[in-house]
Amino acid sequence: MNASKQVVFTPSGLRGVFPEGTTILDAARTLGVDLDTVCGGRGICGRCQVRVGSRPGIEARADRLSPPGPTETEYRARRPLDEGNRLGCAAQIVDDVVIDVPPESQVHRQVVRKRAEVAALPVDPVVRLYYIEVAEPDLASPSGDLQRVLMALAEQWQLEGLAVSSMVLSGLQPALRRGAWEVTVAVRDGAELVAVWPGFRDIALGVAFDVGSTTIAGHLCDLLTGDLLASAGRMNPQIGLGEDLMSRVSYVMMNEDGAGRLTAMVREALDGLIGELVAEAGRDRLDILEVAFVGNPIMHHLVLGIDPRELGTAPFALATTDPVEIMASELDLLTHPVARVYALPCIAGHVGADAAGMVLSEGPHRGDAVQLLVDVGTNAEIVLGNRERLLAASSPTGPAFEGAQISSGQRAAAGAIERVRIDRETLEPRFSVIGQEMWSDQDGFDFSLVSGICGSGIIEAIAELYLSGVIGPDGTIIGRETSHRVVPRDRTFSYVLCDDPLIEVTQGDVRAIQLAKAALNAGARLLMDHYRVDQVDQIRLAGAFGSHIDPIYAMTLGMIPDCDLSRVAAAGNAAGTGAMMALLSGVARAEIEAVAKRVEKIETAVEPRFQEHFVAAMGIPHSRDRYPELAKVVDLPARTPAPRGRRTRR
Amino acid sequence: MNASKQVVFTPSGLRGVFPEGTTILDAARTLGVDLDTVCGGRGICGRCQVRVGSRPGIEARADRLSPPGPTETEYRARRPLDEGNRLGCAAQIVDDVVIDVPPESQVHRQVVRKRAEVAALPVDPVVRLYYIEVAEPDLASPSGDLQRVLMALAEQWQLEGLAVSSMVLSGLQPALRRGAWEVTVAVRDGAELVAVWPGFRDIALGVAFDVGSTTIAGHLCDLLTGDLLASAGRMNPQIGLGEDLMSRVSYVMMNEDGAGRLTAMVREALDGLIGELVAEAGRDRLDILEVAFVGNPIMHHLVLGIDPRELGTAPFALATTDPVEIMASELDLLTHPVARVYALPCIAGHVGADAAGMVLSEGPHRGDAVQLLVDVGTNAEIVLGNRERLLAASSPTGPAFEGAQISSGQRAAAGAIERVRIDRETLEPRFSVIGQEMWSDQDGFDFSLVSGICGSGIIEAIAELYLSGVIGPDGTIIGRETSHRVVPRDRTFSYVLCDDPLIEVTQGDVRAIQLAKAALNAGARLLMDHYRVDQVDQIRLAGAFGSHIDPIYAMTLGMIPDCDLSRVAAAGNAAGTGAMMALLSGVARAEIEAVAKRVEKIETAVEPRFQEHFVAAMGIPHSRDRYPELAKVVDLPARTPAPRGRRTRR
Repeated sequence: MNASKQVVFTPSGLRGVFPEGTTILDAARTLGVDLDTVCGGRGICGRCQVRVGSRPGIEARADRLSPPGPTETEYRARRPLDEGNRLGCAAQIVDDVVIDVPPESQVHRQVVRKRAEVAALPVDPVVRLYYIEVAEPDLASPSGDLQRVLMALAEQWQLEGLAVSSMVLSGLQPALRRGAWEVTVAVRDGAELVAVWPGFRDIALGVAFDVGSTTIAGHLCDLLTGDLLASAGRMNPQIGLGEDLMSRVSYVMMNEDGAGRLTAMVREALDGLIGELVAEAGRDRLDILEVAFVGNPIMHHLVLGIDPRELGTAPFALATTDPVEIMASELDLLTHPVARVYALPCIAGHVGADAAGMVLSEGPHRGDAVQLLVDVGTNAEIVLGNRERLLAASSPTGPAFEGAQISSGQRAAAGAIERVRIDRETLEPRFSVIGQEMWSDQDGFDFSLVSGICGSGIIEAIAELYLSGVIGPDGTIIGRETSHRVVPRDRTFSYVLCDDPLIEVTQGDVRAIQLAKAALNAGARLLMDHYRVDQVDQIRLAGAFGSHIDPIYAMTLGMIPDCDLSRVAAAGNAAGTGAMMALLSGVARAEIEAVAKRVEKIETAVEPRFQEHFVAAMGIPHSRDRYPELAKVVDLPARTPAPRGRRTRR
Repeated sequence: MNASKQVVFTPSGLRGVFPEGTTILDAARTLGVDLDTVCGGRGICGRCQVRVGSRPGIEARADRLSPPGPTETEYRARRPLDEGNRLGCAAQIVDDVVIDVPPESQVHRQVVRKRAEVAALPVDPVVRLYYIEVAEPDLASPSGDLQRVLMALAEQWQLEGLAVSSMVLSGLQPALRRGAWEVTVAVRDGAELVAVWPGFRDIALGVAFDVGSTTIAGHLCDLLTGDLLASAGRMNPQIGLGEDLMSRVSYVMMNEDGAGRLTAMVREALDGLIGELVAEAGRDRLDILEVAFVGNPIMHHLVLGIDPRELGTAPFALATTDPVEIMASELDLLTHPVARVYALPCIAGHVGADAAGMVLSEGPHRGDAVQLLVDVGTNAEIVLGNRERLLAASSPTGPAFEGAQISSGQRAAAGAIERVRIDRETLEPRFSVIGQEMWSDQDGFDFSLVSGICGSGIIEAIAELYLSGVIGPDGTIIGRETSHRVVPRDRTFSYVLCDDPLIEVTQGDVRAIQLAKAALNAGARLLMDHYRVDQVDQIRLAGAFGSHIDPIYAMTLGMIPDCDLSRVAAAGNAAGTGAMMALLSGVARAEIEAVAKRVEKIETAVEPRFQEHFVAAMGIPHSRDRYPELAKVVDLPARTPAPRGRRTRR
């Protein structure tokens, strides 16, 4: 008769009394401790690794567990096993013991990312792998191979009543025989058997996409561990048929099967990115079992093969706001044939799955602070609220922030001026361009590589000109004879930012930015009206533009409502992070689906107050001494620009 | 204030009291009367037609309902409306009234077929159509078009929480706009929105296939009415790669991608049949929303793209016994893109979906009588039982019944002798062949068209020879000098059935049939042993062979256990009928799925008693006077042969 021993699991604190000889995995299962296993306790997968811990009265001693036996010795011969780590399925209880379950052995783990923008992501994928031993067929009691697989899943994993993908059928019998009646299966949503491989296997990959009108970014992840294996980006090839979203819709309206062509182009780009990602990570695209993506409504529709023409004219009806699941093969993506693509929900006609991804990533609905989330592109997507209530709107900022409608404007690409400083006294400029490390006043700066000015550059230039007194609070460029930098043009003035090549900030440029920033500010104010707050607790600037604009300049110009600067932060590629979260976690999907349903949509076009706010926001709201740190020209770049190769402009 | 009136529905007998002015459809819905509608009561579909009936105290008077108004007048202008028929959605209650709901206005109707073998089929298809009026999009309260469609289905048809096929998305917005926000949708299993068409529509077609190793039969049906629109058959093109099932499996084993080739061939034949069927009925293959099929295990696997090699050797493991649902496009069938294919469940390695179809059609599980169901092919599938218990086995009869292993044997095709009579005194034969109306002793019979003898022909020949004393009870052909018809061959005798061309019944032929019929009989006896009965209440001979063999000869030879002749009947193409039932009714699917699960499989190969029964069944069991009607040669054909064009040999 075996004596009973106490087992305490940390960090869960779950405890129980078990007969000597009970395995740690069995004890964990009995108590409901979150201890992972793919092989079901057969000493193969190594996911149930634990360590002996301690607490008052039970010191950490290796001999509280049985000594390592053949299972662990064999495992160690195949794979590394850290000193002191034990396989929970093999180690047996010998004495009272504290068992520490490290994070990597938990099923519902949090993976901490290296890149700042990707914080802790819960890993709880919709596709999970299960290793099973299947009964062999028997002439005397005939049953289908599939039925014996389902029986094994019920007996060995308590998975009952599974549906079965028809795609499992053709490979099932060879897999069972090649694996000598031991196979690994993939189960989706705990409800459907979707794939079978011979023998033990712990490879399951996924890809998250952020499909922007300009750039597409992809991330290859390990679905089991949550590890980010590779990231890559490429231009959206549709850009050849129209720079911005509305020109894509025009293309659709003017060309027979224009939508089909745009769909084919974006899908080809996605498939190409998959190829890049697996090549970079040295993996096989046929191991990709799941894909998730975000995009603005037009990209969302085009990826899914839905003609986006309805999004081009009022009332901007989306085909669907719900999340969409579709086979990867239907989108012409070459992956494992059972891979499905999950499109995050859309919120409204101009507030798409990208905004949903941003919400999922930044989580205004998870906290009490009233958060303003802004993603700036041709339209600005604006979300305001907290756990109580969320509002969303799209504001027609136009393409000025992306460098369009600016006399020397260009997209944020090599050669674009992106940072600008102007001497408060001499009005002489200094600037940096994308692709050169040094500033324009440093030795070796190559002016021949300067080609234009991008969105963040024009914002900084206008703010610095205001702070230097060249631009008045109403946005007028004030002529002054003391500087050759301010020159008359027609009946207005321009500021010469660069002599050769000639790059000016014109009165028209200032007006274009004023219109754009007024629209952005008015959208935010409209949501604040609806929310009945005068100011917000936090501001998050999402997207590439949001990441590269300096909040202090944005605030100076009144792009965003006033807020303590310490509470304004860039959110990085929040939409892409949201896509990754949805890729890795079914819980995250349920979360954003529930949140998207209860977001209140505010349509700026039908709100008279939007016009009022818009007019009121045209000027520059703050006096020049609002931010003392800007009283004189800032000597150093306010912040280190992110490596351009990583930058994904959406 | 409206007075209340009594309404009685027949045949259901449901009754209630309603305010004057209530429509018949509303009253029917309130009471739960089975009254069909596709348009939801908008006077468009005409499916809710009723008539005024009578009962004691409430005579049939037209003015018990409101006079026909504009809805019915407009309907009559578009479509025929029988005199006295009223649209239930338009006719209002004016006085106490009896309402007769004819069968064609019931949702769960029984369709009576013209062909005898297809009796009353319940119509309750898994795909149903619903006409809805959808709210238009509104800028002020943005919602997706799909979400408004789902809202309409919930409000107008009480269909809540539907899943949505991703295939709906691309056509949804154009359909809504072309239909001016009125569309017809298809919903599968009451659970998934699968298709959308603009405006009102009541076309939904389905195809049922019976995939035999030799012949494939297809039936095009109207899913809404259950009407059979067309039937067609063609040879299974695989026959060029092997006559019987085992030669197909051999082909798979000997040829790389042999299974792929066989799969492609059978799918091409199915798709070709679809083309024939819609051409014959003048319909469009894109209106086909559902397909169902039966087949023996090897055909079942090949259609589904599963390599059947495991079915070629013990333990004959099926990939799956459960029913399979798969997109028609995955089987390379051109139909409506959302069409799904339903494969009936298999029972065991040699008792396939065809046997399941036969069980569904004949319904031994629905009655108390102990029924023996036999489908004879290369293997005989045998099912025994009643509502209490069902047993199934496959018996290795070999191909003799199909004309193989017979000296002059051939398949049942033009030129084959299929009926035989022998004069008890003179031993002179008369016979008929497939393709000629007259018998061989009639003027004008063309002997040059005689090419061989088929299964039913050799059975009748041997039985008649036994009755004439030419063959003894042990199957030996007895030489006699008084007839030139019995001639010595080697050390045995043959009977000359036809002089030119020479067609003989040899001793070897008799032995081959003895082996086959002994196997069939032994299989049935084995099931009777397991069931613990000495005789059965009913026998059904299914399939083309079962339809063309005369039960009295089958009984004389002891092919089947002894049974009152009046209780032996041909079941026609029972498997194909079962496929049609599953096509037309979700209830029928649930029924056969439940029954297939509880059938007890008896494996003849591992049962020692099978060998005993087999040996005991080799001889001819009945004395020559068992059936007095066979005491002398029967003058007329015992029964009219079915038109050969309709014959589908499986």
